[in-house]
Amino acid sequence: MSLKIAIQGVKGSNHHQVALDYFGEDIDLVECLSFDSLVDQLLNKTADKAVMAIENSIAGSIIPNYALVFKNDLAIIGEYYLSIHHNLIVYKGQGLENVEEVHSHPMALLQCKEFLKSYPKIKLVEAVDTAETAERIQKYQLKRIAAIAPKAAAELYGLDIIASEIQTISNNSTRFIIVKTKNPSDESADKELSKTGINKASLRFITDHKRGSLATVLNVMSDCKLNLTKIQSLPVIETPWKYAFFVDVTFTAYEDFSKAKSLLDIMTEEFKVLGEYKNAML
Amino acid sequence: MSLKIAIQGVKGSNHHQVALDYFGEDIDLVECLSFDSLVDQLLNKTADKAVMAIENSIAGSIIPNYALVFKNDLAIIGEYYLSIHHNLIVYKGQGLENVEEVHSHPMALLQCKEFLKSYPKIKLVEAVDTAETAERIQKYQLKRIAAIAPKAAAELYGLDIIASEIQTISNNSTRFIIVKTKNPSDESADKELSKTGINKASLRFITDHKRGSLATVLNVMSDCKLNLTKIQSLPVIETPWKYAFFVDVTFTAYEDFSKAKSLLDIMTEEFKVLGEYKNAML
Repeated sequence: MSLKIAIQGVKGSNHHQVALDYFGEDIDLVECLSFDSLVDQLLNKTADKAVMAIENSIAGSIIPNYALVFKNDLAIIGEYYLSIHHNLIVYKGQGLENVEEVHSHPMALLQCKEFLKSYPKIKLVEAVDTAETAERIQKYQLKRIAAIAPKAAAELYGLDIIASEIQTISNNSTRFIIVKTKNPSDESADKELSKTGINKASLRFITDHKRGSLATVLNVMSDCKLNLTKIQSLPVIETPWKYAFFVDVTFTAYEDFSKAKSLLDIMTEEFKVLGEYKNAML
Repeated sequence: MSLKIAIQGVKGSNHHQVALDYFGEDIDLVECLSFDSLVDQLLNKTADKAVMAIENSIAGSIIPNYALVFKNDLAIIGEYYLSIHHNLIVYKGQGLENVEEVHSHPMALLQCKEFLKSYPKIKLVEAVDTAETAERIQKYQLKRIAAIAPKAAAELYGLDIIASEIQTISNNSTRFIIVKTKNPSDESADKELSKTGINKASLRFITDHKRGSLATVLNVMSDCKLNLTKIQSLPVIETPWKYAFFVDVTFTAYEDFSKAKSLLDIMTEEFKVLGEYKNAML
């Protein structure tokens, strides 16, 4: 039986591309129109694993997704970096002069801002997904609406690309995480086997308000030879303006990370490892 | 002449409420349908100051807005915390049974997720602004669409509230910043006058990749008696996976902050003060 992989968006989206690159062609795709419903698919066991965008080299972290992973007790089991290429896609035979509206995900619209500024008469409309508009253009033969979407979406839905590589920043990549629900039986089985490939982890903890308490935590991480690759403070729900930290670290030796875990567990509140996995950044 | 204040969204929105609370009733409102166009209003001098949401106690920082402030060389001159109250708003005389779609800002939809889960048949549609749908419902007499919006929007557009306080988290506040363009003449005039009320600042800097370099910076801040209230790492544009840090600090004595500024300017790359202002958090 093929793996059931939940993605945000529809076939032809960047999430779909990551699912293919990470898991191969032999998967059953579960299309979700929000990150919430993607998590629901995992919790309801209608998907085995999910692909979730977590960070973009232009707009930074997608912070609510960190909260989703934490709150639903999911495990991050891997990551993947995808180079993003945006294209302006229209119904067969249409030209730029027919386009009255461009629909895409807010992030995609943001990333093509400079290109779109040259066409001030074109209205920008936010859509839930980059590929979903492409699907609608084909289905309803929409001639005045263009989509910003990956090349794969144009191919899949038989549409024309009238402008390619329209993103402002050429070096534009998005980081995706691979998540699943925690399974106690997996954990015991994996305990000794798979630690060798692991050199990155995502952590979440709370520190008290005392001046310098985060600095103290970072000093310990540094002493344990962990490299910090990312840090975000996030308010603690129901306790406005008390902060939790989401931190990603890389390391060479798993024992160093083990030592840091023991120390952080004592030094911080509600310390939790969101996932230990292989660093995919080149 | 009244001050021209740019807000994201339309009359009746939370941004509008903050503009009234912060500047009083005697303002000329400049409605903007995106944060980008809000910044453009400042740069084109069609607005004197702008109100910008920057952080939410549920979803965390609105990271792209930090980048907008930095990139366009704006100055943060104040902050404001608003308690958020969401209401389900419909055309006069309509009931919940008529509602087929709920439109609002993605953040508002997220904040009312639990309430909306009880009505799985209602379709959720993302809109650019919380109050904009209320305006449309009145204008086009829309009977199957409900808005999630502040009470003020219902009053302003003559609509009915059919469910009030529908947000999941009762203690839900949003932090707004007040921004303007930098004016060299202001700066020299303000130099000695206004430092007394100042006890908070927003900073941006880059550190090198060396292990522990952020910890070193935070140690210095702690030594200078600065309290860290927020930290976000953000990729440096065109240099994927090199990180800049956006940090908010509070302090008691301005001299302590002055000392920290001198040290951080030497220790970090591209150190910039995005704003020095009065802490509005109670």
